[in-house]
Amino acid sequence: MTVPPERDAYGAMMLAALDGEAGVAEIVEREDGLINANVTGPAMYFAPFRRWPAHHRTAMRLVRGRVLDVGAGAGRVALHLQERGHDVVAIDNSPGAVEVCRRRGVRETRLLDFADVDESLGAFDTIIMLGNNFGVFGSAAKAKRLLRRLRALTSESARILAESRDVSTRGGSDAPWHVEYRQRNVDRGRLPGQIRIRIRFRKLVGPWMHYPMVSPAELREILDGTGWTLARTIDSDDTYVAVIEKTH
Amino acid sequence: MTVPPERDAYGAMMLAALDGEAGVAEIVEREDGLINANVTGPAMYFAPFRRWPAHHRTAMRLVRGRVLDVGAGAGRVALHLQERGHDVVAIDNSPGAVEVCRRRGVRETRLLDFADVDESLGAFDTIIMLGNNFGVFGSAAKAKRLLRRLRALTSESARILAESRDVSTRGGSDAPWHVEYRQRNVDRGRLPGQIRIRIRFRKLVGPWMHYPMVSPAELREILDGTGWTLARTIDSDDTYVAVIEKTH
Repeated sequence: MTVPPERDAYGAMMLAALDGEAGVAEIVEREDGLINANVTGPAMYFAPFRRWPAHHRTAMRLVRGRVLDVGAGAGRVALHLQERGHDVVAIDNSPGAVEVCRRRGVRETRLLDFADVDESLGAFDTIIMLGNNFGVFGSAAKAKRLLRRLRALTSESARILAESRDVSTRGGSDAPWHVEYRQRNVDRGRLPGQIRIRIRFRKLVGPWMHYPMVSPAELREILDGTGWTLARTIDSDDTYVAVIEKTH
Repeated sequence: MTVPPERDAYGAMMLAALDGEAGVAEIVEREDGLINANVTGPAMYFAPFRRWPAHHRTAMRLVRGRVLDVGAGAGRVALHLQERGHDVVAIDNSPGAVEVCRRRGVRETRLLDFADVDESLGAFDTIIMLGNNFGVFGSAAKAKRLLRRLRALTSESARILAESRDVSTRGGSDAPWHVEYRQRNVDRGRLPGQIRIRIRFRKLVGPWMHYPMVSPAELREILDGTGWTLARTIDSDDTYVAVIEKTH
């Protein structure tokens, strides 16, 4: 499902940042009432390649062929790869984000939920989910289902480059409000790093989103039986890019 | 009433900023659901005199004698004036803010609601309410009552330096979410600039506060009959410091 415009807090924030509004922060509310204003977030969504974190730049070396950019945001990855000559399809479930991508020059942008990707988009050689966007899968069960379908929508040598975070080690925080929340997730049978969040901007309140963060071990369990395998990881201080390839 | 520690979102934010936490923003929620993350706010609370806005520095020239700093926050005004040799009493209704003031070296700091100020604090020559802190009065009616009482707690030549904002002119915004809210206030018999807000930080949700912003004309009406008069204003681009003196 895509986000209705009257709930598109994320897209309105992106549009405000594109229009040069000062002091735009990404306000994220978690289901337990935790709230955080990410003050560097919006700038990162618009950052040119030279300002990207090192592990994102490294991940770009593994991109080949036709690319699907999942949760494209302000289009930084799509713009970079299309400049490098790739055929890129950028998808986002936020109408505002899609508008920002278009205004910034991303050639193929679709307002589309990742779960609704099908063969009408053509076949892909690389699927990109940077910026913790493994979370766009929504849950371990949904990830398993969608990964199976993605086999048919991708070439034999396809790769998924998906960023996530191991909250049980250095990707997590010792703060009690995070420790308690992870325990609460486990008590409910969720992955410890499965956060449920929404974005707020001005008077707009985004829809609640399940956004799982997984360790490499948890990712391997999710991949098991889907026809995909974790080939390697590209690590940063607190996150990692999973390089996922087809099982042969 | 002072803020109970479990609702002291503002104080927790101040303590996090004092402890050097990166990216601390002041998240303000208005009763109509508008939310804003002030990304420069916390830094301003801690700013040394040379970084203050020009109209705040100008206002300091009018300070004399014994000083009451109302809504002292992180103590920037109190610290500056006590360095200049003034006897300063800093009050705040936030336990966290009071702790920050003390840790930063403000000599006399009290956890106290402005409405509860009485003669036990001694007499004052200057009362300071910078940073839009006229709003600490809570409403026009409360301001009138408290101003009358402040006559007896102050010397003959006392001054109140109170900052506010004229939302009907350059201090306001044309954005529809602000225009609608001001109209809603008027419809309810409130001053157009009387905002009702609360602070959020991590999982802490501050108490709702009425926080009026007044034009010089509205301020004159409030002062009428209280024994105080608006002597002059020190203007900035969007706010002004009212210089309030006793009517003789």
